[in-house]
Amino acid sequence: MMFLDDLSTKEFEREIDDNTVVILPIGVIEEHGSHLPLSTDSLQGEYVAEEVARRTGALIAPPIRYGVCNTTRNFSGTVSIRFETLRSLVLDVLSEFGRNGIKNVVVLSGHAGSTHLAALRLAAKDVVDKNDMKILVLSDYEIIYEKGFVGPEDGHSGSVETSRVMAIRPDLIKGKGKKGVNRIPKYMVLRHPEKYWKGVTGDPAKATKKKGEELNELIIQEMVKMINDMRKMEV
Amino acid sequence: MMFLDDLSTKEFEREIDDNTVVILPIGVIEEHGSHLPLSTDSLQGEYVAEEVARRTGALIAPPIRYGVCNTTRNFSGTVSIRFETLRSLVLDVLSEFGRNGIKNVVVLSGHAGSTHLAALRLAAKDVVDKNDMKILVLSDYEIIYEKGFVGPEDGHSGSVETSRVMAIRPDLIKGKGKKGVNRIPKYMVLRHPEKYWKGVTGDPAKATKKKGEELNELIIQEMVKMINDMRKMEV
Amino acid sequence: MMFLDDLSTKEFEREIDDNTVVILPIGVIEEHGSHLPLSTDSLQGEYVAEEVARRTGALIAPPIRYGVCNTTRNFSGTVSIRFETLRSLVLDVLSEFGRNGIKNVVVLSGHAGSTHLAALRLAAKDVVDKNDMKILVLSDYEIIYEKGFVGPEDGHSGSVETSRVMAIRPDLIKGKGKKGVNRIPKYMVLRHPEKYWKGVTGDPAKATKKKGEELNELIIQEMVKMINDMRKMEV
Amino acid sequence: MMFLDDLSTKEFEREIDDNTVVILPIGVIEEHGSHLPLSTDSLQGEYVAEEVARRTGALIAPPIRYGVCNTTRNFSGTVSIRFETLRSLVLDVLSEFGRNGIKNVVVLSGHAGSTHLAALRLAAKDVVDKNDMKILVLSDYEIIYEKGFVGPEDGHSGSVETSRVMAIRPDLIKGKGKKGVNRIPKYMVLRHPEKYWKGVTGDPAKATKKKGEELNELIIQEMVKMINDMRKMEV
Amino acid sequence: MMFLDDLSTKEFEREIDDNTVVILPIGVIEEHGSHLPLSTDSLQGEYVAEEVARRTGALIAPPIRYGVCNTTRNFSGTVSIRFETLRSLVLDVLSEFGRNGIKNVVVLSGHAGSTHLAALRLAAKDVVDKNDMKILVLSDYEIIYEKGFVGPEDGHSGSVETSRVMAIRPDLIKGKGKKGVNRIPKYMVLRHPEKYWKGVTGDPAKATKKKGEELNELIIQEMVKMINDMRKMEV
Amino acid sequence: MMFLDDLSTKEFEREIDDNTVVILPIGVIEEHGSHLPLSTDSLQGEYVAEEVARRTGALIAPPIRYGVCNTTRNFSGTVSIRFETLRSLVLDVLSEFGRNGIKNVVVLSGHAGSTHLAALRLAAKDVVDKNDMKILVLSDYEIIYEKGFVGPEDGHSGSVETSRVMAIRPDLIKGKGKKGVNRIPKYMVLRHPEKYWKGVTGDPAKATKKKGEELNELIIQEMVKMINDMRKMEV
Repeated sequence: MMFLDDLSTKEFEREIDDNTVVILPIGVIEEHGSHLPLSTDSLQGEYVAEEVARRTGALIAPPIRYGVCNTTRNFSGTVSIRFETLRSLVLDVLSEFGRNGIKNVVVLSGHAGSTHLAALRLAAKDVVDKNDMKILVLSDYEIIYEKGFVGPEDGHSGSVETSRVMAIRPDLIKGKGKKGVNRIPKYMVLRHPEKYWKGVTGDPAKATKKKGEELNELIIQEMVKMINDMRKMEV
Repeated sequence: MMFLDDLSTKEFEREIDDNTVVILPIGVIEEHGSHLPLSTDSLQGEYVAEEVARRTGALIAPPIRYGVCNTTRNFSGTVSIRFETLRSLVLDVLSEFGRNGIKNVVVLSGHAGSTHLAALRLAAKDVVDKNDMKILVLSDYEIIYEKGFVGPEDGHSGSVETSRVMAIRPDLIKGKGKKGVNRIPKYMVLRHPEKYWKGVTGDPAKATKKKGEELNELIIQEMVKMINDMRKMEV
Repeated sequence: MMFLDDLSTKEFEREIDDNTVVILPIGVIEEHGSHLPLSTDSLQGEYVAEEVARRTGALIAPPIRYGVCNTTRNFSGTVSIRFETLRSLVLDVLSEFGRNGIKNVVVLSGHAGSTHLAALRLAAKDVVDKNDMKILVLSDYEIIYEKGFVGPEDGHSGSVETSRVMAIRPDLIKGKGKKGVNRIPKYMVLRHPEKYWKGVTGDPAKATKKKGEELNELIIQEMVKMINDMRKMEV
Repeated sequence: MMFLDDLSTKEFEREIDDNTVVILPIGVIEEHGSHLPLSTDSLQGEYVAEEVARRTGALIAPPIRYGVCNTTRNFSGTVSIRFETLRSLVLDVLSEFGRNGIKNVVVLSGHAGSTHLAALRLAAKDVVDKNDMKILVLSDYEIIYEKGFVGPEDGHSGSVETSRVMAIRPDLIKGKGKKGVNRIPKYMVLRHPEKYWKGVTGDPAKATKKKGEELNELIIQEMVKMINDMRKMEV
Repeated sequence: MMFLDDLSTKEFEREIDDNTVVILPIGVIEEHGSHLPLSTDSLQGEYVAEEVARRTGALIAPPIRYGVCNTTRNFSGTVSIRFETLRSLVLDVLSEFGRNGIKNVVVLSGHAGSTHLAALRLAAKDVVDKNDMKILVLSDYEIIYEKGFVGPEDGHSGSVETSRVMAIRPDLIKGKGKKGVNRIPKYMVLRHPEKYWKGVTGDPAKATKKKGEELNELIIQEMVKMINDMRKMEV
Repeated sequence: MMFLDDLSTKEFEREIDDNTVVILPIGVIEEHGSHLPLSTDSLQGEYVAEEVARRTGALIAPPIRYGVCNTTRNFSGTVSIRFETLRSLVLDVLSEFGRNGIKNVVVLSGHAGSTHLAALRLAAKDVVDKNDMKILVLSDYEIIYEKGFVGPEDGHSGSVETSRVMAIRPDLIKGKGKKGVNRIPKYMVLRHPEKYWKGVTGDPAKATKKKGEELNELIIQEMVKMINDMRKMEV
């Protein structure tokens, strides 16, 4: 049994103990070039969550596919909610997990925008300050950024992201995609960032399914380790 | 193509016109007796949404399975978010639909709690006051309540609801369920409503898959009619 | 002594015990056809409150004549406050009743809009979650709706409502009023509901003072029963 | 016709023009010694409002008897709402007056607490910044403070306030009242101000009905002047 | 050691005991005629804070030069923040002082606007309601207003204020300044108060450095007395 | 003339044009080991701001020394305000800069916490969405992080930060400081991060004044470049 809400109230009561881990996948509806679906970030986080749950016995909470987009906020198809909305939503959900006796949570975001992640972290901080819980908050992209696979040359909708979607949902790839460069002046907060960036960073044509599978596996293994460590930590 | 976020930004731009209808399914994680899963309300709304989309060409936005529960708020497994959180979330999502040129939206809730529905209606009202949009907000249970299929004798987790889940996800039925009566004094706001109600209203043993199929079909047909009417209305 | 704030601080201290019931009447300033005053909902709730207080020994808190109107929000004379304003106001007042040792409260609304009532219920729920109190929240119209006296054929400013005002404040009846039908598409949230409804549901010409007196008496007797039951319930 | 909500929607529409003045009386439920009722501040403001309306043709909006009390917040019987609640309420009401074409409003508070008045002024400021309106915000006690009738020696529940209630509602005077001195250290914000003050400032025994009548008349005349001036001012 | 944040975490821990007093200076960026800098209110409060700290051993927290301006809100150079922003900021800072074991705080504002001061008082009240702290909240102008040095004839940017700046930062005096009268109708809340007032109340030409020095000394001595009294009061 | 609020209202009006740049320094009161003052982050940002202003003709707005601290929130001396407070404060200040015709702003934070910076960026984004402004938001630590001078080995209170304070305020260095390692599990949100980290990352003993001067100069030159570029950008 993997999905938290497949359980009945009685099963839930029996199932939950101090060792239980719940993964809450967070995605977003967001422009991802002409070759990737709006669900790109959601797909990746949910795929990772399912694989990690399989290997660790974690439960998966219903995914949230609504998040905060800044740079892509003016593109067609992007659905960006307010920072405070995302924060409140995740705060409420985590608090209810706490009320229900869940001690270990992973908030896993497929989207890696810095304010989006700040909303998730703030929510988690407010919850651990009032509940005996341990909460991991991360984006799968932070893991591969750390390892040097993404960066200023290849990021949003680029070869890495395209590779990963090729490995997860090849049916949603819509052609090759256009190469792009992010020329938004560093640190600049702008009304129209799309004047300096066309929505793709990197060259999607360099993507391969194999690269995607390798990156997905790398992320999954890292997360499995983190969850095992978290289970051993004291609250 | 049925799921809104399967589209790329370009496809989305091409697809959306004044005739487009988007269905936003809202569910909840909530106690539903010992025989039904916590996802009971989510399942029903999402099933109806998919069937209606198939028959009307509507797009389905990513479902939200987090909502407001009052009467069941102290039960194990219920995950209830604050009224203002649900309202903000739906407000933001509908506003972004508006920014993207979507003119017709159906907010379809599988959960029919009165404050939960009030949050959805308030969000919709605030959005139509600022955007040229038409928004339907309803629970599938309002339709069958109107027609007399549910009521004080048979409601939450009772024979009707059990029948519908039998027709949609028979694999998630966990036995027969216990008969129950709601003895919460009318109009009374209580700290512990579960003193007067054990989480089931009606007799789940009277449920049949066939009854479930008929009720689902009835709801779907009503909603198809509403969507056709909405498309003809002026903004 | 019937009005709570007629008491001095010392009298109040002496008067309040676990058996005390306080009624908080909530009304609204709202369009009610050309034949009824804007105070229509306020008048009815306050009249009922006074009669019920007389028969049960309850105290009456100062009435609030500001509430939430949706369908009539664009009419002349309607004064609609925001949902969150009404909710905060009633929350604060009920919390202060709690601080003062009042254990039983009736929030009685003359106005029966669904979001208006949701604001009152949410406020009450938040207060009982933190105070040992029992709170009844209802509209007098819910009582007579339940008994079948009002409905889609005869509602806002119709024959029932007109009858009741004839029995309470005949001096404020301004002629016969025009018959009206509510053609707002069910479940539809609209920018301009007044395109589908002229502000009256039913035929005011069918109103009689006698019918009004009977309905008022029916409501009063129901409420007296509820208050007696509430006094016997455990907190 | 004096009370705004005695009007029907049609009458209201006919009645309102640029010259219309609406008075919104604000009171509070607050400790006022053992000799005065909790409604003391409400009574005075509402009495003045009615007299001023009579002499100027102003309309009276339904009074609000809920406000912000700081110094008396721990006394029995005081019902103090949050600053932001009062501010939101008055903001919403004034905004709706603006939507209805009312150009001149007097917010008249019988209670003169400085944060209470700040809430009223902030609400009014936010409304004039968005509507072509002129708003007077004052307490009747500011008028007689300015003229030297109240001060550190004779204030809350003292001889002046007692005199005024004697002139307005002699039936609610409950004996002579105890003399009191306010020893709260100046500028000090304290958890328990009642350690330094017993709820009366001044000597209620010095009150007379005649003094009360004179002070009421003085206030009424000042306010009539202000309203006449306001009507002549440009928006 | 006078400035709180000159301390290291260890020094801070050693330094703080029940006798510690922290002064939090609050100023504003605000129009002050053509002869005084926008920092006029900030300068005065900070100067007084430093002198008082010197004489009492109080610590000075980093000054805040952002506050609420109403009457001058439309002038060039004024930077007015929202009431709720100032209140939240001061609430958070005072709460953190409380967490750190600080028992005595003086919130000293160089700006004396009534809503600005209300924000400071509300913040302090909310903090003492939850922490064992004593908090003084005042403007230096309240001290000299009480003693009759400022009033309707000589206030904002007038001779008293100019004198004080001459004594504190003579290098920032930019010429003589124009005489002015405040003709804003009393109690009137207006969209454009600058129609009735040009930004100066009184005659700056009457200012002298000597008068400024005397007033500053008077304020400093009063505050030293208050702090000594506060240290002796029970929490 | 360098400090914005040294100007009078008239000078301000004359001074401001489309080319004007205002720098808003943001600091924090925060634990920085036993060898550095609580003002460490404030000092660095303000020093850089002054040097940059000197070289570019920018104006400096009054610094704010209150910000958001997460990891150090439980240490003595840290004063951390809520995320929403910082965001509101900076939003209000930037909006008022906009009202005053300022087109170019640099929000320069000496503190580099990720939620702290997210608050500044959100505030800036909301302001550019409503005003024709260009806003740079950065921490000086982001510049030297990018260039590889700080990282997981040497960060908070480590050799780089100590070096910089040695170059700016050598009088506030309080001895050598203890070496420290940050063992907080990556991505983990904890109630007590101080269990895994003693407040220093790196070896302060390796700090030199010369290194500090070089890093300060590097930051200053980078910022001068950014400001020159910003002036040339279209709004």
